[in-house]
Amino acid sequence: MGALDSWTDGAARAAIIEFVERVTTPGGDDHVPPAERVAVFDNDGTLWCEKPMPIQLDFILRRLAAMADQDPALRARQPWQAAHTRDYGWLGQVITSHYQGDDRELPVLAAGILQAFAGITVEDFEAQADAFLRSAQHPTLGRGYLACSYRPMVELLGYLEANGFANYIASGGGRDFMRPISQEMYGIPRQRVIGSSTTLAWEPGEAGGRIVRKPELDVVDDGLAKPVRIWSRVGRRPLLAAGNSNGDLPMLAFAEQPGRPGLRLLVLHDDPTREFDYTAGAEQALQRARNNGWTVVSMQHEWRVVFAETPP
Amino acid sequence: MGALDSWTDGAARAAIIEFVERVTTPGGDDHVPPAERVAVFDNDGTLWCEKPMPIQLDFILRRLAAMADQDPALRARQPWQAAHTRDYGWLGQVITSHYQGDDRELPVLAAGILQAFAGITVEDFEAQADAFLRSAQHPTLGRGYLACSYRPMVELLGYLEANGFANYIASGGGRDFMRPISQEMYGIPRQRVIGSSTTLAWEPGEAGGRIVRKPELDVVDDGLAKPVRIWSRVGRRPLLAAGNSNGDLPMLAFAEQPGRPGLRLLVLHDDPTREFDYTAGAEQALQRARNNGWTVVSMQHEWRVVFAETPP
Repeated sequence: MGALDSWTDGAARAAIIEFVERVTTPGGDDHVPPAERVAVFDNDGTLWCEKPMPIQLDFILRRLAAMADQDPALRARQPWQAAHTRDYGWLGQVITSHYQGDDRELPVLAAGILQAFAGITVEDFEAQADAFLRSAQHPTLGRGYLACSYRPMVELLGYLEANGFANYIASGGGRDFMRPISQEMYGIPRQRVIGSSTTLAWEPGEAGGRIVRKPELDVVDDGLAKPVRIWSRVGRRPLLAAGNSNGDLPMLAFAEQPGRPGLRLLVLHDDPTREFDYTAGAEQALQRARNNGWTVVSMQHEWRVVFAETPP
Repeated sequence: MGALDSWTDGAARAAIIEFVERVTTPGGDDHVPPAERVAVFDNDGTLWCEKPMPIQLDFILRRLAAMADQDPALRARQPWQAAHTRDYGWLGQVITSHYQGDDRELPVLAAGILQAFAGITVEDFEAQADAFLRSAQHPTLGRGYLACSYRPMVELLGYLEANGFANYIASGGGRDFMRPISQEMYGIPRQRVIGSSTTLAWEPGEAGGRIVRKPELDVVDDGLAKPVRIWSRVGRRPLLAAGNSNGDLPMLAFAEQPGRPGLRLLVLHDDPTREFDYTAGAEQALQRARNNGWTVVSMQHEWRVVFAETPP
């Protein structure tokens, strides 16, 4: 597999190669030292699929359903009710409304999510996330979740890394949910995963004590928070940012520096045959991309293949 | 300069070498893969000196004094009063009291500190920190602040890095204050600096927008927060931790994992001739080190030299 072989010979591939050559050409006007080559990627809908619901939501719903199985009183309350009855419509709408700026039902969902894994250690949480990701199947694509990453994007990560970039995930999804698989799926080591998280607390004790999850949101790594979280973790502005929704807009805008080349990629889900076709929650980002000449990556036109050919 | 040449042939150097050989010997029972070799270091009093006051406090005081020069009304209020009159006794006591568990005056100092650099961009703040660190002299040691790192600890960082470790700074000091010099002084890249920080906010605008500092504490990376912050940033437990005060106790305790070797170093300031002699704020940490067999690093006995011989 050569570099970017899963990309068609289109405008997006050309823009990527042109950008990488500019920043890596020794002695060139736009050369950037390797230590300063930072690329940031949203995860849901950018590196792996997020429909019919984000993969982490499936993980959480299974846990909520198990809680409702144990405790019938929970079945009358959202989000346990939706989890128990597999009412994915309600859930999907909460997420889409969020990206459209309507957060009225989000606290109901968030409260349930925070309860779902409260009080367990970070190691226990990671083991559960890891087991889920290695065993669960995507509901419609006929492949396991570990095979739901976009092959062109994985190629892009490898191409950037081979050109001296440090790739980071800057996702609204849970940092500790993605960490067990980020190296294997994306070649991104766990310390380069930035994401949302609950509050954690260290409790002294035998063998180094324990870090436990509290039922309280610490940071939601989305929207205006993304540039701040990237700066806090990396200490640099990114040269390249890739996203797919309105929540990625600030991060994409942030990937610009005076006198330096930058590349902003917006994945457009327009491929109902191979993946999904939706722009809900991405309207502003698409408008901005068109106004500012950011690179829109049409899955249908820019990608020769979407997923790896042989699901594991 | 060989590995650990600035260390005497004492117990601390032997413990370090024995530990590193155990975790790096291929096929050994205690071998740890390189990706999992994480070492964390406090900064003030562990990697560089912190007396008569933390270096960052000098930086802040100069700014507060400049503010009081401009606005006489500030001269009647702490901490501007102390800064204006160079009353370092009051300031030092606030810090020492904090490490002894008494935080009654800390909010007064904190409020001033938060005002000192409010509203400026992270790039402006970094430029000011960088200029200060490159120009200011330590008040008593007769050397610039950039020459105030402990040479044996810098050697240790290099020795660990040469043995596949990723070194992180986990300091109560300001993350954005240390970042401009962490690579040059310690070989630790900016993304591996964990520390305290004010709240930041991204503001959209030309050229990628700006990230500005708000007059509000975001995280204080000290005490119980250190294990949580290390986990959040690294996603791993450290194998080695080094500190010097009670605020490092949780981090030192955290550097232990079932079935894995660990090393905990506690720097003891007992060298009035070459550096300083104090245990205030370190009493519990020293007690714990003695009870648990952690490695106490006496500056007087374990270090052949304290600072680099030729101040730049």
